[in-house]
Amino acid sequence: MADQKEKLTIVMFSGDLDKALAGFILATTGASMGMDVTIFFTFWGLNIIKRNEGSIRSKGLMRKMFNVINRGGAKRLTLSKFNFLGLGRWMIGKLMKEIHTPTIDEMITMAKEMGVKLVPCSTSCGIMGVPEDAFRDGVMSLAGAAYFLNEARQSKVTLFI
Amino acid sequence: MADQKEKLTIVMFSGDLDKALAGFILATTGASMGMDVTIFFTFWGLNIIKRNEGSIRSKGLMRKMFNVINRGGAKRLTLSKFNFLGLGRWMIGKLMKEIHTPTIDEMITMAKEMGVKLVPCSTSCGIMGVPEDAFRDGVMSLAGAAYFLNEARQSKVTLFI
Amino acid sequence: MADQKEKLTIVMFSGDLDKALAGFILATTGASMGMDVTIFFTFWGLNIIKRNEGSIRSKGLMRKMFNVINRGGAKRLTLSKFNFLGLGRWMIGKLMKEIHTPTIDEMITMAKEMGVKLVPCSTSCGIMGVPEDAFRDGVMSLAGAAYFLNEARQSKVTLFI
Repeated sequence: MADQKEKLTIVMFSGDLDKALAGFILATTGASMGMDVTIFFTFWGLNIIKRNEGSIRSKGLMRKMFNVINRGGAKRLTLSKFNFLGLGRWMIGKLMKEIHTPTIDEMITMAKEMGVKLVPCSTSCGIMGVPEDAFRDGVMSLAGAAYFLNEARQSKVTLFI
Repeated sequence: MADQKEKLTIVMFSGDLDKALAGFILATTGASMGMDVTIFFTFWGLNIIKRNEGSIRSKGLMRKMFNVINRGGAKRLTLSKFNFLGLGRWMIGKLMKEIHTPTIDEMITMAKEMGVKLVPCSTSCGIMGVPEDAFRDGVMSLAGAAYFLNEARQSKVTLFI
Repeated sequence: MADQKEKLTIVMFSGDLDKALAGFILATTGASMGMDVTIFFTFWGLNIIKRNEGSIRSKGLMRKMFNVINRGGAKRLTLSKFNFLGLGRWMIGKLMKEIHTPTIDEMITMAKEMGVKLVPCSTSCGIMGVPEDAFRDGVMSLAGAAYFLNEARQSKVTLFI
């Protein structure tokens, strides 16, 4: 146990681009510091790890409707502020590109390569009608709140974003 | 001290239905895992544990006005997203009912029965003019930020929602 | 090490007045309880510790534009709710004054005097084009996510606000 890696566990509740960036900057930084990092995606946060391509095949009319208005995919995320200008996502993208910051889509790929575990919340998937094949490659199996709390109680740092 | 239960402490700052659900799913899961769970309600989060019935008797015109526009009660909470469609709360209610998830109102009752401590923040109540009798049965006495920090520093997991 | 102070570390991601109040009430309470408190300001949270006076001199047209629409300064913060009424900030200001709560501007000054460390996130400053002289007196040097995680892993309580 003495050589066990310190854990960082993040609940990613929000699906806003700015909060997703904060989450993945912390996750990749933690991994590069040698931490064992898990991100648990709930509610709107599930949108971050959905595939960018194709559509989502939900069961039932309500869930089909819901997954049209709440499509998701890292390339579709929007800012929590200034989006009414239609400028938000475009502007932050330009600002990030100018200083050579990777996009959120690239950060997700980096995070997986660095061993960050990306875990979708099973309860949220059930409520929102998100099937397991809606997620991009490399995402882990669904798990529930008990899985998260068990990780969190062993973690040095736990954040709800 | 060796057999003391592990603590989970949540600050519930938001009064959004989706965040309230996340908070109570975590709280009830923690309690079912044998954790000692406290939720500390501040600012908009106070709305979650207000009584659904009756009106709130604040002192002073400003506080009376504020408590009309910010009425609260678990049955009045709205989603942080898609509420402009007027659909949000109704849709999530239907989706939850279909898979037999309890409502937020039922979860609060369940949480109390499982021993989760529901504590309103005294400073927030002071600023917002919320009298102690505005809260539903089973809510604990008001307590301040020092109470929360004292719980949190003894906790395995602390979340700000 | 035995007499080391317990640490409280806060990520202040939001620039909303209500969340800033929550952050500074917790920070000053923690400091008064003898905790060693650090607030790490990222994204919109940077607005809280920007100077109220003068304008921000960014490089490049995009960043100049961005810093006009996202000016910041503690006296310009707005509530996350009810702001559409144009009432939000004014009303909460009145409510706080009536019960003699300090303003957020006064709380920031108090926090610094109590030894709370206010640290702007270097990555956020880079993306948003915020120069180091945009911040009010007493703010520390810029630091990155690794600095935050190193503080957080030594902390009894870590919150993402």
